[in-house]
Amino acid sequence: MTSIAPPRERLLRAAAELFYAEGSAVGVERLCKAAGVSKRSMYQLFDSKDKVIAESLRVHGPATVAGYFPPPDAAMLPRDRILHVFARLEEQSGRPSFHGCPFVNTAVELHDASHEASRVALRFKEQLESYFLRHAEILGAPDPAFLAAQLTMLFDGAAVRAVMRAESLGGTAFRAATHLLDSFAPDR
Amino acid sequence: MTSIAPPRERLLRAAAELFYAEGSAVGVERLCKAAGVSKRSMYQLFDSKDKVIAESLRVHGPATVAGYFPPPDAAMLPRDRILHVFARLEEQSGRPSFHGCPFVNTAVELHDASHEASRVALRFKEQLESYFLRHAEILGAPDPAFLAAQLTMLFDGAAVRAVMRAESLGGTAFRAATHLLDSFAPDR
Repeated sequence: MTSIAPPRERLLRAAAELFYAEGSAVGVERLCKAAGVSKRSMYQLFDSKDKVIAESLRVHGPATVAGYFPPPDAAMLPRDRILHVFARLEEQSGRPSFHGCPFVNTAVELHDASHEASRVALRFKEQLESYFLRHAEILGAPDPAFLAAQLTMLFDGAAVRAVMRAESLGGTAFRAATHLLDSFAPDR
Repeated sequence: MTSIAPPRERLLRAAAELFYAEGSAVGVERLCKAAGVSKRSMYQLFDSKDKVIAESLRVHGPATVAGYFPPPDAAMLPRDRILHVFARLEEQSGRPSFHGCPFVNTAVELHDASHEASRVALRFKEQLESYFLRHAEILGAPDPAFLAAQLTMLFDGAAVRAVMRAESLGGTAFRAATHLLDSFAPDR
């Protein structure tokens, strides 16, 4: 027999999947049904749906972020470590299961930057920017923080592009990231 | 006495304002209350809330787009016409009433690219990209379509950044657009 996860885990997993696929406006009824948990149990575990949104992002967000990064011990140059993120985005963008960045979606959907889940979302977005910053510094970019901000804006804008067009980026984001890195290279 | 707009116009204006400020998940009750229109009247005018979302974007979208462009007869170079869009975004980004790009928000919130409103949103986004393309061509960019895509991704990524951080872009988007244009300039 396969073991069944406890209600809390089932709820958070169902929330992460359902809110990503359909948006955080999905109702409590559907969420509980998908998780196989009663509404009564849900409200015993969490004060509100808002808490579920924040906690599901907090618990499942790290896997989303890690999915864009190469293994830390991979033998890769900093430039390739940056481009790896865009190569992964290009791959993801062509899949029917791709609905953009879950952190951007949550922040956009909630329309409230002070919402606990919006603050969790921002922290994950900052992890991406810190990753870019670290490698921009190793690359010796003249203004690493500016390059990191540019790469983050490109990532988010590209994800939005794929969502709005409902099609693969077709290499545009990867090429734009390459162009950005080249534009800072000292030999230009 | 001030004249009162007919119910259809009041509904579409309230929808544009409320969905932009709080998201398209806002319910029909609140929408009708804000518009001062009965639910019965709303359903006589529109088949569904989905139709209201699409039509409010269609009717009020052109003013949003136009708000980012300089007057067509302004004496401005193509480069400045492109940068004008980012200068406007910088201004907007610092205002409490700024909630990002309404077209991106609608597409993200609906999670359905085949929804009528998502298709309307995409058409407006394409107007922005066409504007960039037209001016990139006049500028003599080596690959105007690529530059237009890069500028569009920057615009969307920057708007998302302002929303997630709930703060002004502080010049980052304008500087990034300038950098992008400079990176294609023939004298580099």
